[in-house]
Amino acid sequence: MALPLLEDQAEAARAVLPPEVLSYYDAGAGDEVTRTESERAWAGFRLRPRVLRDVSAVSTATSAAGVALPHPVGVAPMAFHALAAPDGEVATAAGAGASGALFVLSTRASRSLEDVAEAATGPWWFQVYVMKDRRLTEALVRRAATAGASALVLTGDTPYVGVKRRVSGTRLAVPDDHFLVNLAAHATPGQGSDVQRAAAEQDPTTDLSTIAWLAEVSGLPVLVKGVLRGDDAVACLEAGAAGVVVSNHGGRQLDRAVPSALALAEVAGAVRGRGTVLVDGGVRSGTDVLTALALGADAVLLGRPVLWALAAGGADGAAGCLDAVVSHLEHVMALAGARTPAEVGADLVAGATPLPG
Amino acid sequence: MALPLLEDQAEAARAVLPPEVLSYYDAGAGDEVTRTESERAWAGFRLRPRVLRDVSAVSTATSAAGVALPHPVGVAPMAFHALAAPDGEVATAAGAGASGALFVLSTRASRSLEDVAEAATGPWWFQVYVMKDRRLTEALVRRAATAGASALVLTGDTPYVGVKRRVSGTRLAVPDDHFLVNLAAHATPGQGSDVQRAAAEQDPTTDLSTIAWLAEVSGLPVLVKGVLRGDDAVACLEAGAAGVVVSNHGGRQLDRAVPSALALAEVAGAVRGRGTVLVDGGVRSGTDVLTALALGADAVLLGRPVLWALAAGGADGAAGCLDAVVSHLEHVMALAGARTPAEVGADLVAGATPLPG
Amino acid sequence: MALPLLEDQAEAARAVLPPEVLSYYDAGAGDEVTRTESERAWAGFRLRPRVLRDVSAVSTATSAAGVALPHPVGVAPMAFHALAAPDGEVATAAGAGASGALFVLSTRASRSLEDVAEAATGPWWFQVYVMKDRRLTEALVRRAATAGASALVLTGDTPYVGVKRRVSGTRLAVPDDHFLVNLAAHATPGQGSDVQRAAAEQDPTTDLSTIAWLAEVSGLPVLVKGVLRGDDAVACLEAGAAGVVVSNHGGRQLDRAVPSALALAEVAGAVRGRGTVLVDGGVRSGTDVLTALALGADAVLLGRPVLWALAAGGADGAAGCLDAVVSHLEHVMALAGARTPAEVGADLVAGATPLPG
Amino acid sequence: MALPLLEDQAEAARAVLPPEVLSYYDAGAGDEVTRTESERAWAGFRLRPRVLRDVSAVSTATSAAGVALPHPVGVAPMAFHALAAPDGEVATAAGAGASGALFVLSTRASRSLEDVAEAATGPWWFQVYVMKDRRLTEALVRRAATAGASALVLTGDTPYVGVKRRVSGTRLAVPDDHFLVNLAAHATPGQGSDVQRAAAEQDPTTDLSTIAWLAEVSGLPVLVKGVLRGDDAVACLEAGAAGVVVSNHGGRQLDRAVPSALALAEVAGAVRGRGTVLVDGGVRSGTDVLTALALGADAVLLGRPVLWALAAGGADGAAGCLDAVVSHLEHVMALAGARTPAEVGADLVAGATPLPG
Repeated sequence: MALPLLEDQAEAARAVLPPEVLSYYDAGAGDEVTRTESERAWAGFRLRPRVLRDVSAVSTATSAAGVALPHPVGVAPMAFHALAAPDGEVATAAGAGASGALFVLSTRASRSLEDVAEAATGPWWFQVYVMKDRRLTEALVRRAATAGASALVLTGDTPYVGVKRRVSGTRLAVPDDHFLVNLAAHATPGQGSDVQRAAAEQDPTTDLSTIAWLAEVSGLPVLVKGVLRGDDAVACLEAGAAGVVVSNHGGRQLDRAVPSALALAEVAGAVRGRGTVLVDGGVRSGTDVLTALALGADAVLLGRPVLWALAAGGADGAAGCLDAVVSHLEHVMALAGARTPAEVGADLVAGATPLPG
Repeated sequence: MALPLLEDQAEAARAVLPPEVLSYYDAGAGDEVTRTESERAWAGFRLRPRVLRDVSAVSTATSAAGVALPHPVGVAPMAFHALAAPDGEVATAAGAGASGALFVLSTRASRSLEDVAEAATGPWWFQVYVMKDRRLTEALVRRAATAGASALVLTGDTPYVGVKRRVSGTRLAVPDDHFLVNLAAHATPGQGSDVQRAAAEQDPTTDLSTIAWLAEVSGLPVLVKGVLRGDDAVACLEAGAAGVVVSNHGGRQLDRAVPSALALAEVAGAVRGRGTVLVDGGVRSGTDVLTALALGADAVLLGRPVLWALAAGGADGAAGCLDAVVSHLEHVMALAGARTPAEVGADLVAGATPLPG
Repeated sequence: MALPLLEDQAEAARAVLPPEVLSYYDAGAGDEVTRTESERAWAGFRLRPRVLRDVSAVSTATSAAGVALPHPVGVAPMAFHALAAPDGEVATAAGAGASGALFVLSTRASRSLEDVAEAATGPWWFQVYVMKDRRLTEALVRRAATAGASALVLTGDTPYVGVKRRVSGTRLAVPDDHFLVNLAAHATPGQGSDVQRAAAEQDPTTDLSTIAWLAEVSGLPVLVKGVLRGDDAVACLEAGAAGVVVSNHGGRQLDRAVPSALALAEVAGAVRGRGTVLVDGGVRSGTDVLTALALGADAVLLGRPVLWALAAGGADGAAGCLDAVVSHLEHVMALAGARTPAEVGADLVAGATPLPG
Repeated sequence: MALPLLEDQAEAARAVLPPEVLSYYDAGAGDEVTRTESERAWAGFRLRPRVLRDVSAVSTATSAAGVALPHPVGVAPMAFHALAAPDGEVATAAGAGASGALFVLSTRASRSLEDVAEAATGPWWFQVYVMKDRRLTEALVRRAATAGASALVLTGDTPYVGVKRRVSGTRLAVPDDHFLVNLAAHATPGQGSDVQRAAAEQDPTTDLSTIAWLAEVSGLPVLVKGVLRGDDAVACLEAGAAGVVVSNHGGRQLDRAVPSALALAEVAGAVRGRGTVLVDGGVRSGTDVLTALALGADAVLLGRPVLWALAAGGADGAAGCLDAVVSHLEHVMALAGARTPAEVGADLVAGATPLPG
């Protein structure tokens, strides 16, 4: 279960968001098995706290892909924040900055990356969907680098968009002024959203060689998002990635994909410190973060909770959500006898209990 | 859970089929443990997709017992299709052909195998119940071979018919004009359905030697259906079988038999490419098919869903059902990073979660 | 779940038996965890049937402790059958005989063992509670031997009677004319039921040496009932036992004791053919019996179902209950490809699914 | 589930205690996963009783940290007993003494430790929260030693107090006359409860070196409470502890911490007789105690049940609760074939069934 604040924010979001927006964000692919299990999977681990350690000073400071961070809790890339709050990603970036949280901006943002960069007071990364038009892709990542992104996050799990039953047959109406605005800048004026939508279509030919290409054209470290296997993580590193994000895309792509909580240890074990390991999917409390650190993550990304917080309270809401998770993490680190993320080892978790079917 | 179309078709079938026909097809043996678990078992496997593979071109093409197939989704043998749609197996064969699906015709068909053969535009196989009257059996398989069947499927799990509580005490009223019509052709005219029914009784002395006999009299490859163990599969191959169908007869024979999804890996491992491995039982989506391929199946057979589709929409319904599963298979293959069935390896599945009790 | 006939008989028994009698028989110790799991545990095993075996002739014939039996289904010892049907154990023995079933008569029978012996047309054994008055115990087993019992079954799990919440605080009113009538014969006339009750109290000093003593005074083979561990089974054999009955006393003694279905394989493995292995607890169908045979039992005993059958239909009811289970056993043996109990090996069962908590 | 008497007492306590007091005691941290599982975990073990042992004489006598005890059932340290019954810990100590139970008095008691010591007719230990003011801590443990405590129990799992949702935002109103009375004696008169509360705050710098310090200033053996890992237990012993209490603080500290029932075997195995091993958390019956002994505990402590008993019936209620558990322990030891705690070995338990999610 989520922290009380996060539950309150989710409830508030359900009250203010239009049903189709709510469904758009909430839905998972297929039978939503992966969507549902992703949250439960963290709660399935049992913890093995240590006692009688001096925990008067607990520090959550860490780093990811060379970026120093006051804590390991960041914001996962998500599309169209403006559907949740008027300022969209500008507000989210401000909230993340206030909380010291890493912010990952989506290709499908509803605010220009330059505006977001200006609002960001902390480090931010840019998420990349490789589009069929490679020049469009290249232009975009160059803009991101110029605007100050410190890394790229290449989404690897979306050669095609997963089928979501809850929203199938309906196309989300996104107002023109915040629909794929970053792609719009590269489109011929007046072509309208359908053309943009087509331009934004992911390129299913994307493969491991894309990693080096992105690194070259952007000059930035590239992490691959959507990795759920150790061998895939190694393949990404060997292809030039600076790290991976263990993720099943919030349960929105391949249903019955393994929950990221259950894939994390394998991936982290395969990476063995040779790259950064982030994880997203179902993180809802400091205890979830503690578990992720124990399983080998350098940091975690929060998705839907940040969006609900944004809908419930704008930039302040987002900051509050992130602060609550970080504060809870500090508390449970102390109770577990861990003063730093480095002291949160694999021995802190016992085997996961089986997921309910 | 089934794909939405399949669920819609099942609901439509429940609306149009007489209750006793519905129960006849739907029932499982005993407490229906195996019947129920067969569907759930596929959903218990977790998938380990690969990312950043070029999946712009996905091919489902495969082969089974020497027959080239555009995709690995076929129709399992079932009795009396005319109870579901007027044209019975003629319609099913047409639908299967439209979808490129392998069709397996039952001994207990309600349309003559020659009529079915004529309607079939793709490969079809003939399912054999060995009857006490071996000459009747022989005549039937010779007809099948002559009509163009490319293989025989010997049902091995039905020395006696399993007891189904839901339908026990009642005998399904099958109109004479579509009751065991293929056996009728070999019966003395005017004997009526009771005599036919007796003639159709399976022969419990059937054993492994029957495989070679069937192959000899028909000149066709013989697959054994109902195999749930590796040692049995090997015994079948050694007795001359071209392959096996991992199956528990839709949960209609021995209740508490292991779900075919859970028996598949053992059987495929024992066969090790020396024969064809098909599987049926509970397949309801492309994800189920993907899982079956990963566990070692060359192809899968769909049973009840095709019958519901037939009741809901005749030949077109059947084709639609099969098309939906194949289309979903292509989608999830892409999301899993697999371009061909050969790229769907055992590493794609993680251990199954335990079945709910 | 039980066979339909057994469920019908149980329902009929609930309708005719006084609530306190029903509770007396139905109750388990403590939280009734073991009571409940004993039935479920059989259903947790998955079966691995063989195909294409000639099963035209299936024989259930077996033997136990040197006694040839037409089938492996017997009647477990239970107290006071006269509470369920007027003729009590005389009716049960007649029903068992009609069905060819081994009958085990309880020390706490409500009919004299000589009357029961006369009614028995097949083999019967005598269950022994060792009482504080050893001479009384000795006299009783000598009578049993004289009357024709072919073995003794020493209950080992009842040094004290388990506490059953459902019936705690109430003492079952058993009419004098069928209360411990076999002990009454050895009591001073006119002492009344309280004295008898005291005399019948089990002796908690009973230990492994009692086995040899009973064998000597009776001249009969002695089986120990209540064994749930391999080492205990070996200890019993070494102390002179002819075999063991794997049992948790219907869940009426130590709650949370392992279900007998789950203890059976260990015990049978430890005995390794050096003695007879019976099992009781939760057997409700031929599939349960098949599973027990596969796990190493020579025969099974049915408890409560026989009592419900007796209440529902007297001797005929009991015979019908036993016949139904035997008939179902023949059916599932054929479906599993096993012609004799000897062909029902450990390979027929897959690992048990976990019990629901 | 709890013994019937314990359930009755809990129900009676719910009727008489103010809701905020009830919640204060009942609540667990976070989602109450650990709180809930702690009770269920004992019930997850299956037992492997022995038969035909002479169990006419069963003795529960044992010892813990050098103290001889008539039985292994004691009272866990809990705060503010006066909220449950007027005489508070004086009543509990009297009840424990009447039952022969070890009593562990909390630092946060509501009656002076000298009064409690006078009421205690059996051995008692003193639980220590190390406070920021070490002189206050030292004075307190010296008083305890003087008053007759035979050991100290250092709580190691509470550097900070766990967050309990059910009671968050509310501060329990504890009347001045039984609020931290043992600390009050060391405070400047008239400072009021807020100052006391601050003084009572645990010191998060407490570490393993505190064990030796406490032993030195008190002259008493020191056990560490809250240990859930074998390596931690060894670290405590090496730092001078006489033993450990396997505990998760009633599920009130780190949520998702492993249930103590599931941590016990690891801890006891690591200690290997070099120190005393106690356990608390969810013990509600003699069967739970039997399981704890089998898993390696020397004794168990009961928490909430004693408090409910105290609320329901004062000292007599507490004694009744403890007597019921001890009496049940004797019963199940006999049924398990164990005459003494030494005969309750690890072989008595089978692997735990998985916890419901």
